[in-house]
Amino acid sequence: MNESITKKLNMDPLILLALKEDVTSEDITTNAVVKEGSRGQVDLISKEAGIIAGLTVYQRVFELLDETASVEKYVNDGDSVKPGDLLAVVDADARTLLTGERTALNYLQRMSGIATHTQKVAKHLIGTKTKLLDTRKTTPNMRIFEKYAVTVGGGYNHRYNLSDGILIKDNHINAAGGVKEAIAAAKAYAPFVRKIEVEVENLGMLKEALEAGADIIMLDNMNTNTMKEAINIIAGRAVTECSGNVTEARLKELAGIGVDFISCGALTHSSPILDLSMKNLRIL
Amino acid sequence: MNESITKKLNMDPLILLALKEDVTSEDITTNAVVKEGSRGQVDLISKEAGIIAGLTVYQRVFELLDETASVEKYVNDGDSVKPGDLLAVVDADARTLLTGERTALNYLQRMSGIATHTQKVAKHLIGTKTKLLDTRKTTPNMRIFEKYAVTVGGGYNHRYNLSDGILIKDNHINAAGGVKEAIAAAKAYAPFVRKIEVEVENLGMLKEALEAGADIIMLDNMNTNTMKEAINIIAGRAVTECSGNVTEARLKELAGIGVDFISCGALTHSSPILDLSMKNLRIL
Amino acid sequence: MNESITKKLNMDPLILLALKEDVTSEDITTNAVVKEGSRGQVDLISKEAGIIAGLTVYQRVFELLDETASVEKYVNDGDSVKPGDLLAVVDADARTLLTGERTALNYLQRMSGIATHTQKVAKHLIGTKTKLLDTRKTTPNMRIFEKYAVTVGGGYNHRYNLSDGILIKDNHINAAGGVKEAIAAAKAYAPFVRKIEVEVENLGMLKEALEAGADIIMLDNMNTNTMKEAINIIAGRAVTECSGNVTEARLKELAGIGVDFISCGALTHSSPILDLSMKNLRIL
Amino acid sequence: MNESITKKLNMDPLILLALKEDVTSEDITTNAVVKEGSRGQVDLISKEAGIIAGLTVYQRVFELLDETASVEKYVNDGDSVKPGDLLAVVDADARTLLTGERTALNYLQRMSGIATHTQKVAKHLIGTKTKLLDTRKTTPNMRIFEKYAVTVGGGYNHRYNLSDGILIKDNHINAAGGVKEAIAAAKAYAPFVRKIEVEVENLGMLKEALEAGADIIMLDNMNTNTMKEAINIIAGRAVTECSGNVTEARLKELAGIGVDFISCGALTHSSPILDLSMKNLRIL
Amino acid sequence: MNESITKKLNMDPLILLALKEDVTSEDITTNAVVKEGSRGQVDLISKEAGIIAGLTVYQRVFELLDETASVEKYVNDGDSVKPGDLLAVVDADARTLLTGERTALNYLQRMSGIATHTQKVAKHLIGTKTKLLDTRKTTPNMRIFEKYAVTVGGGYNHRYNLSDGILIKDNHINAAGGVKEAIAAAKAYAPFVRKIEVEVENLGMLKEALEAGADIIMLDNMNTNTMKEAINIIAGRAVTECSGNVTEARLKELAGIGVDFISCGALTHSSPILDLSMKNLRIL
Amino acid sequence: MNESITKKLNMDPLILLALKEDVTSEDITTNAVVKEGSRGQVDLISKEAGIIAGLTVYQRVFELLDETASVEKYVNDGDSVKPGDLLAVVDADARTLLTGERTALNYLQRMSGIATHTQKVAKHLIGTKTKLLDTRKTTPNMRIFEKYAVTVGGGYNHRYNLSDGILIKDNHINAAGGVKEAIAAAKAYAPFVRKIEVEVENLGMLKEALEAGADIIMLDNMNTNTMKEAINIIAGRAVTECSGNVTEARLKELAGIGVDFISCGALTHSSPILDLSMKNLRIL
Repeated sequence: MNESITKKLNMDPLILLALKEDVTSEDITTNAVVKEGSRGQVDLISKEAGIIAGLTVYQRVFELLDETASVEKYVNDGDSVKPGDLLAVVDADARTLLTGERTALNYLQRMSGIATHTQKVAKHLIGTKTKLLDTRKTTPNMRIFEKYAVTVGGGYNHRYNLSDGILIKDNHINAAGGVKEAIAAAKAYAPFVRKIEVEVENLGMLKEALEAGADIIMLDNMNTNTMKEAINIIAGRAVTECSGNVTEARLKELAGIGVDFISCGALTHSSPILDLSMKNLRIL
Repeated sequence: MNESITKKLNMDPLILLALKEDVTSEDITTNAVVKEGSRGQVDLISKEAGIIAGLTVYQRVFELLDETASVEKYVNDGDSVKPGDLLAVVDADARTLLTGERTALNYLQRMSGIATHTQKVAKHLIGTKTKLLDTRKTTPNMRIFEKYAVTVGGGYNHRYNLSDGILIKDNHINAAGGVKEAIAAAKAYAPFVRKIEVEVENLGMLKEALEAGADIIMLDNMNTNTMKEAINIIAGRAVTECSGNVTEARLKELAGIGVDFISCGALTHSSPILDLSMKNLRIL
Repeated sequence: MNESITKKLNMDPLILLALKEDVTSEDITTNAVVKEGSRGQVDLISKEAGIIAGLTVYQRVFELLDETASVEKYVNDGDSVKPGDLLAVVDADARTLLTGERTALNYLQRMSGIATHTQKVAKHLIGTKTKLLDTRKTTPNMRIFEKYAVTVGGGYNHRYNLSDGILIKDNHINAAGGVKEAIAAAKAYAPFVRKIEVEVENLGMLKEALEAGADIIMLDNMNTNTMKEAINIIAGRAVTECSGNVTEARLKELAGIGVDFISCGALTHSSPILDLSMKNLRIL
Repeated sequence: MNESITKKLNMDPLILLALKEDVTSEDITTNAVVKEGSRGQVDLISKEAGIIAGLTVYQRVFELLDETASVEKYVNDGDSVKPGDLLAVVDADARTLLTGERTALNYLQRMSGIATHTQKVAKHLIGTKTKLLDTRKTTPNMRIFEKYAVTVGGGYNHRYNLSDGILIKDNHINAAGGVKEAIAAAKAYAPFVRKIEVEVENLGMLKEALEAGADIIMLDNMNTNTMKEAINIIAGRAVTECSGNVTEARLKELAGIGVDFISCGALTHSSPILDLSMKNLRIL
Repeated sequence: MNESITKKLNMDPLILLALKEDVTSEDITTNAVVKEGSRGQVDLISKEAGIIAGLTVYQRVFELLDETASVEKYVNDGDSVKPGDLLAVVDADARTLLTGERTALNYLQRMSGIATHTQKVAKHLIGTKTKLLDTRKTTPNMRIFEKYAVTVGGGYNHRYNLSDGILIKDNHINAAGGVKEAIAAAKAYAPFVRKIEVEVENLGMLKEALEAGADIIMLDNMNTNTMKEAINIIAGRAVTECSGNVTEARLKELAGIGVDFISCGALTHSSPILDLSMKNLRIL
Repeated sequence: MNESITKKLNMDPLILLALKEDVTSEDITTNAVVKEGSRGQVDLISKEAGIIAGLTVYQRVFELLDETASVEKYVNDGDSVKPGDLLAVVDADARTLLTGERTALNYLQRMSGIATHTQKVAKHLIGTKTKLLDTRKTTPNMRIFEKYAVTVGGGYNHRYNLSDGILIKDNHINAAGGVKEAIAAAKAYAPFVRKIEVEVENLGMLKEALEAGADIIMLDNMNTNTMKEAINIIAGRAVTECSGNVTEARLKELAGIGVDFISCGALTHSSPILDLSMKNLRIL
């Protein structure tokens, strides 16, 4: 989700929109104080410990403003950084460096914040078969960036959006009139390449979902004993996912009972940023 | 920044883009399980204590999908809510309720999280003349929503973007060859309706900025004693702003020495969301 | 894929683009000969026997030009029509009727042509468990319309696009260095909600795919005996799809050996249109 | 309609839209199985006999995804190909080859199908003065590609759209209250650079149209004798066009009586594609 | 070019773009001083004598901001106004009145300026057969508004753009290698519905153009005697147009020798605006 | 407002839109008469005396059509030109030269017309402290080009749009209920980086505005004596601006009494173009 085609088709338009959000006519300060045509370099420095994600997006901001911009990277996405580390040097038209700075950092800091947070959560699952998942609780118009950042931090992606996966939740079940009815409707309607996932709240719903042929069962808000029983009932007949606000202690407990996936909305909706800075501009 | 014209011109296109991010062809689950043309209602419920911001954006998501959608609100932007509160009831085509749910919540939760965080910080300044400011450290393509949420929480907005305010920072001073040179260049270039703000790191730069006629001085990374001295030197000749990562203790200290504004990037870049939920869908 | 949200988000922009393709400044003929503000009605008549698909798209063309336009429909999507049938009466501003006519018909004729063709092919599978599938061989910027038309004709949809399904084809296998390697890479990379489909050309590849855990096997260009053997080897461990240019005789033969799905690109890339006409305009 | 400016201004936006239709987030299969940065080549091969049209559009798909893509062409638009012919070799980033394949072929196959069909029809007019015309019965958002394909096959283009030509049809005449009234209104309203074309159904209407000064007369649904009489009446005072579903036998008959143009909607609305394939991907 | 379909398809997007040019985040002044939800009325008053053109565009600006806006018009496009005339009263949300004012006036003043200028020029041709034409020398992204304004002032439109008319000028003739060659190439390439216009600078070129079958001859930069001779040579075999900077005296002279059309770029590129004003806002 | 980032982000999209306004399918004349792939050069020549503005926009038109286009400039923005001067030579694909000509000239002529007009007005202020300002009375979708042209002619820019400056006018004061109320509301609402400007019509309003702390006072429609008195009352406590239709005589008078700025809408709304021409195309 970070290679050149995705960037051209699905990231560039959003990056350009973000640049236009910040420059509706011109960057007055920069155009006033920096002589046209001067070349510059500036350092990207870490002010905090964490995991870097989004360096090519960061680079793309400058390239979209100035085709001659180049970024010499001293770290890669997924690397750990500590305060004071020199992460990269950007070389471009000096105005580009100043005008693009904030947008480039806004992307990189948020993506790195998500990767850092994801890694902190995911490390509690190391050594288990359980994997950490993201959700659709992303910031509007940031999904493609945020879902990529989750993978950099060691998490896995759930479905991308409402068009490419089936997930039957409580409100769908209400509307359909029952678990069985909802699954039957989904099987009849959805392309056969889609797996059917159902969210269940108790063992009765679970059994109904299994009988109706759900591919994935999301166990919602169950205590650990009930969940253990649920896993036993499922017995490998469906992939299992558990969701909800999970503390670190709970993470290990859930992994212990063998759930396949734990999904965590906070990865994308509540990660603080990773503090980074652009310093030491020099005119060449 | 939340009235109907801004929404039509500058929010709707972003909300529509966010909806298309989530629905690239159709909402398969909903279209499978909910009968076409059924009308529904669903409750918006708070799961956490905080300040609500963004209810009209939340409402707009449903209206953009279904012109007949209506939202009965039991709270307004700026109100405090506690877990379990019923905030609103949405009435619309039942498919609209399910398809719009995530996008509507993604906006509302993030905006309310920012308002909640802002209020927590701002309350340390109550009773002082010092005001809390946001920055341009916003999430890409979310600025108009996030800056509004700051005001709901009791904060104030700094400039909107690079085109509508002058802020001369360290890298600009590097490029211009000095504080005086940078201010002179800005005065010569910028429309006269713009105030000139300069970031200074020490008292020497401060004096230079004052002499050159800066309208606003941002005192960056100074200890409290130096800052006190700075305020004395300025003596009302310029508006004062102080930035940087400020703890609560520091906030009061800074307010105590009479700085006009304290800006805080974390309001927009690192607020966790406020947890809200849509529950109890009923088909009418 | 034909309800109001999909139309608003994903069809309307394409319909508007098509209208602008046909009206780059104004409809000169209509504006010259029809008095402004006159109201009219016109009949939609079938000139050929077939299946109708796309009536709400047809209607949408007029609504996008004139909010007061209404269409009284005498048939529904999926109905059979014969030459001379009155299918609908459109009531709108008289200029709207003339300016929208061609674009509305271009959509409706093509969609109905696809539904008609699909039904002709699908009827050979009636009474068997085998289902008819479409492909991604659609006309550029027409996919959402064409895939819907296939379902109206009794066909089923394969994946919508490259982002929402895994299909490993010959060129992918070349690039990955083998069937096993390609499936392993897909399992490691793709969200777990995706099924893995692999195209195989012989029984060796088939066995490799089964062992590697493919969810769906596409049997490409095999003779009937080999395909029968393939189905036996698979023995229900994977869903089976067969593709290629299939004649009617071959369709029955394939259904006879129990393949789950037969995919047919011609449904969307080579269906002739269904001939329809708008006649008898009267000024009210 | 196939040179670089038209492509940049009016084809590229549509091609990009088509690529986004197929890649809403990323090409999961390709990104999973093909190593980033690998270079590849693939062959474009004909599986059917016909006329090629759209090679530069085909090439443009790859260029828009990868600036370094190049296409070595062994045939040109308008050339005849036979099954098995190697038409071109595409050299690009290997992911580009796989991700662009379907969109590139969807354009090229449809355009070549139209050129092939057009040539088959046009050859019946060889040796006569009668020319074959297309219509506005094109696939929505494909007009610029389809009208170009018609010219490659030896056909001629009628007006491009409603804004750049006057064509008064039955419903216009109804609205205007007569042939004479409609022509007078068109002459008064339309820019003088436009020719006035009128569709007539009988000799009475024809005479009225001639008297009113029509530049082009479209003879609609007349039998051959009536049409012969019509041509005699016109006697070179207007250009003549004949439309309607014309069989091959009828084509020659119409050419025989000296009509200037025969228009045929089927060229663009009902041509089957020309079957082409991309094979033999090799990683370099 | 001013009816509802053209407005929806081809004017609204430009009007919206213009509104976004003026409101990149919000109208700060209006949102500060006008209470949300207040209803207002404001008068449109003429400050200068002239011809009004563009009232529905003026109205559309307010409607696009506020669906409930209405405009009571006391004059129509084409009417003469004098200083102090009340032209219309706009009734809308009070913020809409203030936020839309400038954009609405910018359109209306420019369009009325063009209509006023056109009428002044056109009146010198009254009583002759010669008609006044506009050109493509329009303001970028204003053509559809400016060409309409010309017709309101009594002028006529030449071709709309490069795609819908043939006009062979000096540089084309240079490129083609001669008048005859250029006309032959145009006849071979262009759709037969297009007339061929050629610009000639002397009688030699004129004769060549006539022989080659030009439909329209533009006589460029000839003195009156030469032009008279040219008209005699043409003798009705082609429509005649004369261009260039024409003074009022010259206009009558040219009309006197019977040229069909005189084109005048200044109508659209150098008309001063008509001064209008919005006054007397009252909150209801 | 004329450097590469502004061009990429905020000018290019408008230039492309203008090109599509002129080329909705293809440039038929050029494609007919100019052989594909031929290289050409053409001269840009002045036909009138004036000031040039917009050469890089002129150049950009050709570059957007043809990446290999280059413009050799013999003058720069701000230079005076006289009839017959060779301003530049454009070298590009020959079709690009012809297709881009009109759009390139439409921008350059209008921008140069504004610069020429501005310089004529501004020269009356030479030797005084008074500066000439533009307004928001610009042509829709031309603001960024027109405001730049004003600066080239020696004028200064007022605010860019409604989002980046406070200007309280008569209708705002009506809505707020008074000058004091309006200023108080603006101070409470607007970001502190904004200056507050108020338009006053008499000395009573002036005093109220000063007391309420306006940063800029616009003196509207006062006679010279009143204005002199106003300047005395203000006594440097606010910046002063004077607006309205100002004759040359009046300009000097106003400068004489020491007003800081004089704003003039006519610079952007009523400047005639500067007549320029592209001549002498040669195929290389």
